[in-house]
Amino acid sequence: MSGNSIGQHLTLTTYGESHGPAIGGILDGAPAGIPLDLDAIQRELDRRKPGTSRHVTPRQEDDRVQLLSGLFEGITTGTPIGIHIANTNQRSQDYGAIKNQYRPGHADYTYQAKYGIRDYRGGGRASARETAVRVAGGAIAKQILAHFAGTTIRSYLSQIGEHRLEFRDWHHVQDNPFNCPNDHQTAQLDRYLADIRRAGDSIGAEITVVAEGVPTGLGEPVFDRLDADIAKALMSINAVKAVSIGDGFDVITRKGSENRDERTAAAGFLTNHAGGILGGISSGQPIIARAAFKATSSILVPGRSTDQNGQDVEIITKGRHDPCVALRACPIVEAMLALVLADHYLRQRGQNNRF
Amino acid sequence: MSGNSIGQHLTLTTYGESHGPAIGGILDGAPAGIPLDLDAIQRELDRRKPGTSRHVTPRQEDDRVQLLSGLFEGITTGTPIGIHIANTNQRSQDYGAIKNQYRPGHADYTYQAKYGIRDYRGGGRASARETAVRVAGGAIAKQILAHFAGTTIRSYLSQIGEHRLEFRDWHHVQDNPFNCPNDHQTAQLDRYLADIRRAGDSIGAEITVVAEGVPTGLGEPVFDRLDADIAKALMSINAVKAVSIGDGFDVITRKGSENRDERTAAAGFLTNHAGGILGGISSGQPIIARAAFKATSSILVPGRSTDQNGQDVEIITKGRHDPCVALRACPIVEAMLALVLADHYLRQRGQNNRF
Amino acid sequence: MSGNSIGQHLTLTTYGESHGPAIGGILDGAPAGIPLDLDAIQRELDRRKPGTSRHVTPRQEDDRVQLLSGLFEGITTGTPIGIHIANTNQRSQDYGAIKNQYRPGHADYTYQAKYGIRDYRGGGRASARETAVRVAGGAIAKQILAHFAGTTIRSYLSQIGEHRLEFRDWHHVQDNPFNCPNDHQTAQLDRYLADIRRAGDSIGAEITVVAEGVPTGLGEPVFDRLDADIAKALMSINAVKAVSIGDGFDVITRKGSENRDERTAAAGFLTNHAGGILGGISSGQPIIARAAFKATSSILVPGRSTDQNGQDVEIITKGRHDPCVALRACPIVEAMLALVLADHYLRQRGQNNRF
Amino acid sequence: MSGNSIGQHLTLTTYGESHGPAIGGILDGAPAGIPLDLDAIQRELDRRKPGTSRHVTPRQEDDRVQLLSGLFEGITTGTPIGIHIANTNQRSQDYGAIKNQYRPGHADYTYQAKYGIRDYRGGGRASARETAVRVAGGAIAKQILAHFAGTTIRSYLSQIGEHRLEFRDWHHVQDNPFNCPNDHQTAQLDRYLADIRRAGDSIGAEITVVAEGVPTGLGEPVFDRLDADIAKALMSINAVKAVSIGDGFDVITRKGSENRDERTAAAGFLTNHAGGILGGISSGQPIIARAAFKATSSILVPGRSTDQNGQDVEIITKGRHDPCVALRACPIVEAMLALVLADHYLRQRGQNNRF
Repeated sequence: MSGNSIGQHLTLTTYGESHGPAIGGILDGAPAGIPLDLDAIQRELDRRKPGTSRHVTPRQEDDRVQLLSGLFEGITTGTPIGIHIANTNQRSQDYGAIKNQYRPGHADYTYQAKYGIRDYRGGGRASARETAVRVAGGAIAKQILAHFAGTTIRSYLSQIGEHRLEFRDWHHVQDNPFNCPNDHQTAQLDRYLADIRRAGDSIGAEITVVAEGVPTGLGEPVFDRLDADIAKALMSINAVKAVSIGDGFDVITRKGSENRDERTAAAGFLTNHAGGILGGISSGQPIIARAAFKATSSILVPGRSTDQNGQDVEIITKGRHDPCVALRACPIVEAMLALVLADHYLRQRGQNNRF
Repeated sequence: MSGNSIGQHLTLTTYGESHGPAIGGILDGAPAGIPLDLDAIQRELDRRKPGTSRHVTPRQEDDRVQLLSGLFEGITTGTPIGIHIANTNQRSQDYGAIKNQYRPGHADYTYQAKYGIRDYRGGGRASARETAVRVAGGAIAKQILAHFAGTTIRSYLSQIGEHRLEFRDWHHVQDNPFNCPNDHQTAQLDRYLADIRRAGDSIGAEITVVAEGVPTGLGEPVFDRLDADIAKALMSINAVKAVSIGDGFDVITRKGSENRDERTAAAGFLTNHAGGILGGISSGQPIIARAAFKATSSILVPGRSTDQNGQDVEIITKGRHDPCVALRACPIVEAMLALVLADHYLRQRGQNNRF
Repeated sequence: MSGNSIGQHLTLTTYGESHGPAIGGILDGAPAGIPLDLDAIQRELDRRKPGTSRHVTPRQEDDRVQLLSGLFEGITTGTPIGIHIANTNQRSQDYGAIKNQYRPGHADYTYQAKYGIRDYRGGGRASARETAVRVAGGAIAKQILAHFAGTTIRSYLSQIGEHRLEFRDWHHVQDNPFNCPNDHQTAQLDRYLADIRRAGDSIGAEITVVAEGVPTGLGEPVFDRLDADIAKALMSINAVKAVSIGDGFDVITRKGSENRDERTAAAGFLTNHAGGILGGISSGQPIIARAAFKATSSILVPGRSTDQNGQDVEIITKGRHDPCVALRACPIVEAMLALVLADHYLRQRGQNNRF
Repeated sequence: MSGNSIGQHLTLTTYGESHGPAIGGILDGAPAGIPLDLDAIQRELDRRKPGTSRHVTPRQEDDRVQLLSGLFEGITTGTPIGIHIANTNQRSQDYGAIKNQYRPGHADYTYQAKYGIRDYRGGGRASARETAVRVAGGAIAKQILAHFAGTTIRSYLSQIGEHRLEFRDWHHVQDNPFNCPNDHQTAQLDRYLADIRRAGDSIGAEITVVAEGVPTGLGEPVFDRLDADIAKALMSINAVKAVSIGDGFDVITRKGSENRDERTAAAGFLTNHAGGILGGISSGQPIIARAAFKATSSILVPGRSTDQNGQDVEIITKGRHDPCVALRACPIVEAMLALVLADHYLRQRGQNNRF
C-alpha cells in the first residue's frame, strides 16, 4: 500500500535510487513451470539502456539483470523472482551543485515537501532509472503471456513534436534509434533531434503500444477494468501526462453511429475504435493504447526556480541528458502493458489450472 | 481483488445491477469525528440522476441514498459506511428483445465471453447506474477533504463534438443543464443536442475537473502516483476512452523550455502546465484533469452485430437514452477525483493524527 | 485496508452496527455459473440466530438475509453479491445507563480511545451481531467449495469449562442445542449451563472445526500460508483468544519421531498430527482447527471499571446474554474457515478456468 | 496477492530459496526521517543465525545484511528499503539423495503437488532460511516503533517438551543459548537437549513474546484486528502450529467473572488476561502472545514416506539439524510481532503527521 507495487495476482514491487548500490524488485505470482529465456530479458533492458545513440544520454550502465530466486534449472517454480541490477556508473559528485535547488519540472520540490528529506543524486527515487526494473519484470510478463496465450506486445514512436510518424510496418521500428515506424521520416528525425539538442532544449513525444493475441475476457468490473489498469500503468511512467485507449480523445468529436464497432458473423468486428476493450473487458481485438511524454526539464536553457531556503535561483541542468525521453521509453511502455495483461490473465487463470 | 473496490485507505466497494432490487456499496476508512451533511450527499446524486432535462433519459429514479452504518448522531465513527440506493423504476420487460443480442459498442459481447452468463436487463453490472454509488461515496470523500483540508472539486463540460466550450466562470456551470462553463454557448448547445437526438444519434464530449486547495505531498512513488491513480479512477468511468493531467496530449508538441513550470520565491509557480502534479506528487497547485467520453452506442441508427448463436442481427436501441452521456457525468468525474484525493490524503494522515 | 474486508480473491467486506437499521456486506469474487441454494444460506443464519434455546440470549431477530445482486435467475453472474440483513429488534433505550461506562472485558474502552466516539448501543460495531453477515458470506463460500471440490465443513463444541466433550459422530452434533458431539454428555451440559446462568456468570469453551474433501495445494508461501490465514480468520471472531491447527499446543511436548505424519504408497498419510497442512499448503487430509472462546463479560456479577470521565464505576450487565457465546459460534467458525478455503481455492483456480 | 508480502502500510515482501545466490526483500512504507542503527539490525540477524552453540545446526552463514535503498546519509527517505543477504554456504550436493523423496513432516509433498516442480535443495522456498529476511525487516520495524512510541519487544522460551520454564527476569534470557528466562533451569536444559540430539530426535517448544509501551488504539475492526493479524504473522513462521493471545487456551475453563480485566481510576487495569487487546484493539497494556513450535522432522530416526514415483521409501535426514527449531526462533517471533505492530501504528499515523 506504500505505492511501490503494481498488480494483484502478478505483482511487481521495486526499490532503488539512481545512485544507490543497486536497484531491483520482486515479481511475485508467476506460475510454476514456465521456462524463462534470460537472454530475452536482458535484450529488453538493452533496448532501454542509455548510451546507445547520439540522441540519448551517454551515461554508461551495464544494466546486467540477475534473477536471484524463483527459478530452478531455468524453469519458474511459482515462488517470487528476485530481480537485481547493480548501479555501476554513479557520479554523485555531479549533483552537489543542485542539492538544495528545486529543478523546474522535476520532482525535487514535491519530494522535499512530502518527505522533508530526499536523495538529490540523480533524482533519487524519482529517476527514470527505476524503470529498468519494470523492463525486467515486464520482460518476464511478456514471456508468461507468450507461453500461455501467444500474446505479442510492440510499440513505436507515433509522434515527436509536430512530426506525426506514419505507421508502415513493424520491421521498420527496429531499424532506427527512434523506434520510428517507417523508413522515410528517420533522416528528418535525426536532423530535428540534432537541432533540439544543439539548442539545449528538449521535446515531447507520443508512443503507441499494441498487444495482439490478447484473450477475450480480461478485465474486472467495475474499477479494475482493463483500460483503467492500463491507464494507471502507463501514467505511472515518468513524464507521461496523458493516456488513451483506441481512438482516445478523438471520440469527443464522433457520433455514436461512427464510433461503435459493428460486427458480423463472417468478419467479426469490422473496426476497432474501442482499442480492443469493451466495458473494461478485452474483446479479443488488438489492444491499442497511447501515452504522451512531456519534454524533459533537464535542459541547458536557464530556468527560474527556488531553493530549499526559499531563495530564487536560476538553474541549468548540465550533465548530458536525453533530448526526448520517449526515445528510450518503448520497452518501458511495453513492459507496463505486459505487466497489466499478464496480471489480468492470471487473475482469470489462477495460480494453476488443475481445477 | 475482484475489481469492485477502489482506494487503499479510503476504500469504496460497490455492488448492484441496473435492474436488481438495489445498488449500494461500502465506504471503508473514513476517519471518526466528521459531521456529515446528508443533504449535500443527496444533492450530488440529484445532479446525476436521469429525467432532469429534455437532453437526458427520462427514466425516473428517485435515487434516494440511505447510509446504513458508520454514523452516530450524524458524526462518523470510523466504522464502515453502508450505502443503499433502491432501484425503483426497473422495466425489465423492455429488454427481452435484445437478451440474446450483443449491442454494438456495449459490453454485452465481452461479459458473455468472460462469464458465460449475464444479466442483460439494462446492461446489468455494466450499466452506468452503478455510478450512482460512486457519486454517493465521492460526496462523502468531498466532505472529508473539505473538513480536513478545505479542498474543493468542480468540473465542467469543456467540449462536445466539435464545440470547444470556453471557461468563463464557475457560476455559469450550474446555470444550464449542460454544465457549460459560459452563458453564450448554451443556446447553441441546446440546438445542437436537439439535432443529434432528432437524428437518433449521439455524440462524444470532454469533461474538465479541477481540484483547488489540495495539500502538497499527496501521491506515492512509484506506481501509486497521484496522476496514475487519477488516470485509473477516471478511466474506470463508463464510456471514458482517454485521460489527461494538466496540458495532457499538448505536451507532445512542447519543448522543455516551454513546458516546465518555473517558480519564484515571490510568486510561487508561474504556470501550471503540470496540472498540479510533479513526479506523481501534488505540488499544491490546482489539480486539473480531463476525460474524453465516447458517444453512447444506444442509438436509433441501425447497427450490425451478432447474437449468442453467432447469427447476424441488426440492432436499434429504442428506449430513451442520453444523446450525450457526459451531460450527466460531471458529478461522477468529481466523485472519482474526490475518492482518489481523499484516499491519498488519508494515506498521509492515517486513521488518526494522535501520534 | 481499513480492516473490514477479508480474502484476496473471494473478498467479504462487512458493515453495520448492532443497533443501526441494517447490517450487510459485499461478497466479491464468486465465479459465474454457480446455482445458489438460498434456503441453505438462510439455514446457516438460523443456526446462529439468538432465541433458539434457553441457554442463549432471547433477543429476537428474524435475521432474514437478502441477496441484492450478483445472481441472475438463481445463478451467480461473477459480479459482487450484495448481502442485506435488516435489524428488527433494536431496543436502544436499554443501553442509556452504560453509555459513558467502559464495561470490563468489552471493547468500550479501546473503541473510545481509538476513535474518540462510539456507538455504545449494544456494542455498536464490536457486537457479535456483525458475524451474521459472515455467516451469510460463509454459506455462499461453502456452496462454492461444494460445487467445485465437494468440500464439507463441520464443527462441534469440543470443550466447555472443564468438560472435555468426546467426539462420537457428526449426527449427534445437530441433535442438541450445544453442538455437543455425543449424546451422553448433553444432559450434564444442560445442568452445567443452567448453574452458570443462575450464578449470573458465564464460561469459556472450545470449538473444533473440520474440513473434508479439501484439494491438495491450497495456500501460498510464505505469509499467506493456509494455516496463517485460518489463524487470522478464526482469531477475528469475537471472544476468540487462541487458535490451533492439527495437534496445536500439544506439539510442544512431542518428539519429531512422534509428531511427523508418515506415509506409505498403499495407505497415504498414516496420521494427521499436522491437521491437513504442511509448509502452509493443504495436503489433501482433513483440515482440523480449534478456537478457544473466552467467557462473555456481559454478566450479572458486579465488576469494577471506569467511565469516560475517569471515575470508578461498578457495572452489572443486565439484559439477557448468552452464558457461553460459543454455543452459537459453530456456524461462525465454519463460515470463516469456508471463506478462507474458498478464497485459496479461487486463488488457485482463478476467476474462470477457460485457459 | 501471491502470498509473499505482509502488512498493509508497512509491507515486507520477501524472495529467495535456501540454496540460491541470495535471499532478500523489500520493506515498503517506512516513514521518512528515521535514523536507522544498522548494527542493531545485524545483531538481530546474529541472534538467529546458525552455528552459535552445540544445540543448533553448524551450517555457517555470515548472514550479512545489506540495505540497498531507502536510506540517505543513514536516515530513511520514505522510499522502499531493499534488503539483501547473500547465501554463502550452500552445499547443494548434500541433497541429491532426497531430491525425489518426500521427507515426512516437511513441505516436499505439498510443494510438489501444488507446483509440479520444486527446488529440493535445502527445502527451497520452504526453508526457514527465508526467515532471515523477516528478522531484518522486523529489526527495522522495531526501530520505527522505538522511534515513535518507545515500544520494546522481547521474547523467551517458555516451554520445551515437558519442561515449563519459569519467567524470572529479562536479563536471564540473554545469558544462555536457550533464551531461557531464568538461570536455574539452564543446566537441566543443556542435558535434556543433549539427550534428544543423541537419540537423533527433536522436540517441540513454546515461545512467549511480550510488547511493552504499545500505544492504545492499534487494530482495525473487524477482520484486521490486532490479535488476528498477530495470529496470522506468528502462524506464518515455519513449524508453528498454535498461537494464543493473553491467557489463550486457558480461557476455556474460566468464568466471565474470573477472566475479565477489571479497572479502577487509580490503578488502571488490574489484570491482563486479555494480553493487551480488547475487541481487536490494543488497550495500552503489554501485548502477550505465545506460539507453539513442532519438533523438526529432520531427524535421524528412520521414517516411512513415498517418493515422486509413488514408491515407499525410508528416510533418515542426515546433515546436522537443530534438535529444537524454537531455540533460534526468538528473533523471528519478535520480528513478526514488530512488523504487525509497526504496520498498525503506521495505519493510524499515516505516512506523515503534518495534517
